[in-house]
Parts: sequence; C-alpha cells; structure tokens
Amino acid sequence: MSISKHAFTDAERLAVYRAIEERRDMRHFLPTPIDKAVFERILMAGHHAPSVGLMQPWRIIRITDSSIRLDIKNLVDKERIKTAEHLAERQQAFMQLKVEGIAQCAELLVMTLMDQREHHIFGRRTMPEMDLASVSCAIQNMWLAARAEGIGMGWVSLFEPSDLAKLLSIPQGAQAVAVLCLGHVDEFYSAPMLELENWRQGSPLDDVLFENSWENK
Amino acid sequence: MSISKHAFTDAERLAVYRAIEERRDMRHFLPTPIDKAVFERILMAGHHAPSVGLMQPWRIIRITDSSIRLDIKNLVDKERIKTAEHLAERQQAFMQLKVEGIAQCAELLVMTLMDQREHHIFGRRTMPEMDLASVSCAIQNMWLAARAEGIGMGWVSLFEPSDLAKLLSIPQGAQAVAVLCLGHVDEFYSAPMLELENWRQGSPLDDVLFENSWENK
Repeated sequence: MSISKHAFTDAERLAVYRAIEERRDMRHFLPTPIDKAVFERILMAGHHAPSVGLMQPWRIIRITDSSIRLDIKNLVDKERIKTAEHLAERQQAFMQLKVEGIAQCAELLVMTLMDQREHHIFGRRTMPEMDLASVSCAIQNMWLAARAEGIGMGWVSLFEPSDLAKLLSIPQGAQAVAVLCLGHVDEFYSAPMLELENWRQGSPLDDVLFENSWENK
Repeated sequence: MSISKHAFTDAERLAVYRAIEERRDMRHFLPTPIDKAVFERILMAGHHAPSVGLMQPWRIIRITDSSIRLDIKNLVDKERIKTAEHLAERQQAFMQLKVEGIAQCAELLVMTLMDQREHHIFGRRTMPEMDLASVSCAIQNMWLAARAEGIGMGWVSLFEPSDLAKLLSIPQGAQAVAVLCLGHVDEFYSAPMLELENWRQGSPLDDVLFENSWENK
C-alpha cells in the first residue's frame, strides 16, 4: 500500500481532477472564435483516446459552412420536439430547457463512427458497440482539454442519425453519434445545468457501487 | 480570437495534456494494493462524468472475492479463444498478445449499464446507445485519474455479457460493458501496447478529419 513512483506531482494531480470536476456540458456560448492552436490541441486530445483494438473508429466532420450549420440546427429542433412529445407530463419543462448552442458556438463538429467496422473483431466480437465506447472516450478527452483551455463544449444527441447521414454524405455503415458545440463561454455552470434547472439531481457514488454481485453493498 | 479568461494556468493545462498523452491501456500489473484514498478518488472521477439526461447509467461492481475473480478470468479466456478463431490468419499473433491482467491487478471492477434505462428518453430517443457513451466517459475519467495517480488501468471487453450477467446476478435490462483492471505497474508503456507489439499502428489526426462532408478535406 504505497503511493506510486509514477504518480504526477500533487499540483499536476489536482489539475487533472480540476478538469474532471469543472467540466460541464455547455449550451450557452459567446461568438468569439477559438484560437487555432487551442482548437488543434483539443482535437489532438480526442485523437489520443484509447480505442478497442487500436481501431480509432472516430471520424470528425468540422462544419464551416453556415448553411449546413443551419440545417443541423433544424434537424436537432425537429428531434427536440419529438423527444418532448414522448416525455408526456414533462413535455413543457423539457421544452423550456436550453438543450444546445448550435447557432452560437464558434466551432461545430459532427463526431461519426467510421464505416467498415465489421473488419475489426479485436474486443468487439460479442460487443460490436465497443467502437462507440472508443469514440466516447475521445469526446471525453476533448471535453477535459477544452475545459483546461477555458473553452466550453456541449454534446448534442438530439437528432435522427439517418437525417444527418443524408446531409453530410455519411456512408452506409458509418454513423454520426454526436454534434459537438465548442466555444468561449461567459461562465461555466457551477453544477450540471440539468441540476441547476431542477430537471434531475445526481446520485451519490455510493448508490452505484456494489461488491461481488449486483446491488450487493 | 483570444485566450479564455477561464483557461487553467499553463502548468495545469500541461498536466491535463500529460494525463491524456501518457494514459495507456495496461495489461501488466504489480500485486501491490492500491491506497484506499487513491482508489476512492479514481472511482469519484468516474462518477463526475457527464451523462445523457443526467441519468448516470453506470453501476460499478467491485470484485473482492478471489473465486469470482477466477471465474471472470476464465470467461475472458474463453472469449479470447473464440476471438482468435475469428481472426483467421492473425490468430497466432493475437494469441501471443497479453490482452488482460485480471489475475495480477490489485483491483478488479465490472462496469455495468443500469437496468430500466427505457425510462430515460432525454437524448436517447433515436440513439438509446447514448447510455454506453456516458459509461465510457466515466471510464475515460477513471483512466486519466488513475494515470495521474501513477496507477495503471486496462479495459477488457473480451467476454460474453450474458455469461458475466449470470455470474454476478446482473438483471435483465442491465449489461456489463467493461472488466477494468487497476493496479500499480512497473512502468507505463511508452506507446500503445498494440503499436509496440506491431499489431497495428495509429493514424495521424489528419486522416480522420473532414470538412462539411464525409471524406472531404
């Protein structure tokens, strides 16, 4: 029982935990452009993610065309209304939430699973969805890097993938899994926005931790 | 175009990038126990992850019973052989890789998607698999926290989820998605182990980056 000789310094460890604790899913952005070097570091942080069998299944479509951005915004608005309809008694509360900042953010990315994934069996024979797990790790890296750079990021999953595929010529076998909004922010939320808006409160760690068997404490 | 007033200090930013760049998917471990406070910080880092609709879909089963650990090792060995059989001409090369450190690591965790996820529609109506994305973000947080603490972590996805469900009484609707090995290590790999072992080489970022449309550079 000892501290590892490979541990970072205390200051470095605290910085890593600061990024983890202060990262937020942002939906409010300022229009200021992101510094090019900062943006490249955030992208590279994503590319440093682990991936099952080192398949690096992420494909990143940067949206620089404002008419395509508007089309994406419209796709998301459409799904937002469909989601609201399925939420029954919470429909109105949901429609009052700000769920994305697509029109305002400085950079818009569509994170996509690559095509021809069936050639990659390592770690995916029984769970082909491990490719999504890898892309999610890449997105989490970008989120933390963005936070360290003082840049907000939001993950929007309110869309119909086949609509986005048509819009961006995403081929059969590939699939968009996230619309990412990145940009400067006035301030980072002090807690998850869904907590601040009383949509839902997070549970303590203890509630999700079992020993040796499901729900055994 | 400016640096954000919310940016971390240069030293903090570099620490975050160090964790991202030096994190490795580890398969070689020392038997030394992990300090309790360190282990708890790593778990808490996972619990700080973002989740779709704040559903926090992760359930963490800590394995402290050595006979269950052995059963998990046997499940993984079984799937390792089945994967090898499906890899055809790379079968032998695959069987020579070390793909897990279940028997040696200090702590073994089974990361599981919660049951009753169908009640959560926010951000999942068209893509229910967003719950796996959230669990993956939690695992990536743990990976980075572990690296900062000098602790190695490995994600094993070589198993048949229904076998693991039987072993750990995981109910219908829930699903194990990762066996995580955590422990002290002699050294962190200097590059992804699959690169060092010449299984596969990573691509440059430029290969996966498009603009406005699939494969458009």
